[in-house]
Amino acid sequence: MLTKAQIKYIQSLHQKKFRAETGAYIAEGPKIATEVLTEIPRQVQYVAASPAWLTAHACLLKDIPGERVAEVSPPELERLSALVTPNEVLVVLSRQDTAPWVLPEGAWCLALDDVRDPGNLGTIIRIADWFGVGFVVCSEACAEWYNPKVIQATMGSFLRVRALYTDLTAWLKKAARPVYAATLEGEPVTRLGELPPGVVLVGNESRGIDPGLRALATREVTIPRAGSAESLNAAIATGIILSHLVQD
Amino acid sequence: MLTKAQIKYIQSLHQKKFRAETGAYIAEGPKIATEVLTEIPRQVQYVAASPAWLTAHACLLKDIPGERVAEVSPPELERLSALVTPNEVLVVLSRQDTAPWVLPEGAWCLALDDVRDPGNLGTIIRIADWFGVGFVVCSEACAEWYNPKVIQATMGSFLRVRALYTDLTAWLKKAARPVYAATLEGEPVTRLGELPPGVVLVGNESRGIDPGLRALATREVTIPRAGSAESLNAAIATGIILSHLVQD
Repeated sequence: MLTKAQIKYIQSLHQKKFRAETGAYIAEGPKIATEVLTEIPRQVQYVAASPAWLTAHACLLKDIPGERVAEVSPPELERLSALVTPNEVLVVLSRQDTAPWVLPEGAWCLALDDVRDPGNLGTIIRIADWFGVGFVVCSEACAEWYNPKVIQATMGSFLRVRALYTDLTAWLKKAARPVYAATLEGEPVTRLGELPPGVVLVGNESRGIDPGLRALATREVTIPRAGSAESLNAAIATGIILSHLVQD
Repeated sequence: MLTKAQIKYIQSLHQKKFRAETGAYIAEGPKIATEVLTEIPRQVQYVAASPAWLTAHACLLKDIPGERVAEVSPPELERLSALVTPNEVLVVLSRQDTAPWVLPEGAWCLALDDVRDPGNLGTIIRIADWFGVGFVVCSEACAEWYNPKVIQATMGSFLRVRALYTDLTAWLKKAARPVYAATLEGEPVTRLGELPPGVVLVGNESRGIDPGLRALATREVTIPRAGSAESLNAAIATGIILSHLVQD
């Protein structure tokens, strides 16, 4: 059973401020819980789950001290959860200390300017993972990587993709590799052929890429439109562009 | 001001049952409201909006009888809205009587098997509209076209894409055109070159395409994976596949 203090602690992690202070975050749902318990068991602070889930996943929990595992009823899970529809299991994790990364030569990378929606950011991380793009550079105004909705939307891919939150302008200026900016006025991404690996720059959901950043692009790329929709969702556009650029 | 009966009527349209009974549905948010008032003003039953929105869009409202337009406060809009975050304006519409459509020769078309999530369905409609795919055939188990979350996610594209809800197996058998099924084990969609226009078949978010339907595919197509994510979201996959198949 969770103590009142533990419940309060977990609920505090719904807020970015407390996630920053404590270095802890929440991951929810059976798929992601299974992945984090397998991949990063040492980071696990608490597991709160339905009796059925705990029984079915006993082998995943064998190295987690008993006092860190709590059986919860659906209403209890709902109180702990940061999601609209809580699902069986919630895990509290500590962030891993990771060495600062340097983008390897010849690696593709995503740069996100002000992608605010947590669902979009999480979906983009999942897409990056699908295409083997292991590095995402985010402007400071992007949704927070450890937001529970971001974690949820990654479906576990946050474990395999590395993030850097920084001043994108300064970073792009030093990147010393081609920058392909996703805009509505660029070259058709379907006709570019093979390009040298570089940075795919994606902008804010409604405003697109900041003009100062856009000026740093080597090329602008566009998904040709045959119909009438005004735009595509940022995650959809990222998926389509990566599928044309990153594919061998 | 809305009467109690009008409020109750609008709230009833959150439910599929009442949408089916009345033939009415809800569209929300400034972008979609502007589109429906411009494109299908004769279908408008009610407009409920903030005073600021009504003032700014007076010209769009000039042919809507005054008793159909209501000024609402944010809490009133929240009571009417079917969305988690209501946004300025809500419009109630009657469905248009449309003649049954026949898929034109040489047209691309989407067939959706059991796409349950309203956000996914709406996003797929928006993608179809972007690529000029004007026809979507849905299995009966798909999310309902007039679900407020579907309408919202289309960003207005539901006005330009035509739907048919039917028995997909029977429909595909009679379609007499190539069926390209999106699976995890097909040919790489990046290497197919130009294909004759046909039906792109997309399956359920977790189970994929029903085996009986899959057996009707002319070819199976796959988005090559270079990384480790287990799958892509159904809407992302649809966008990527259409971008490779439908592009000229």
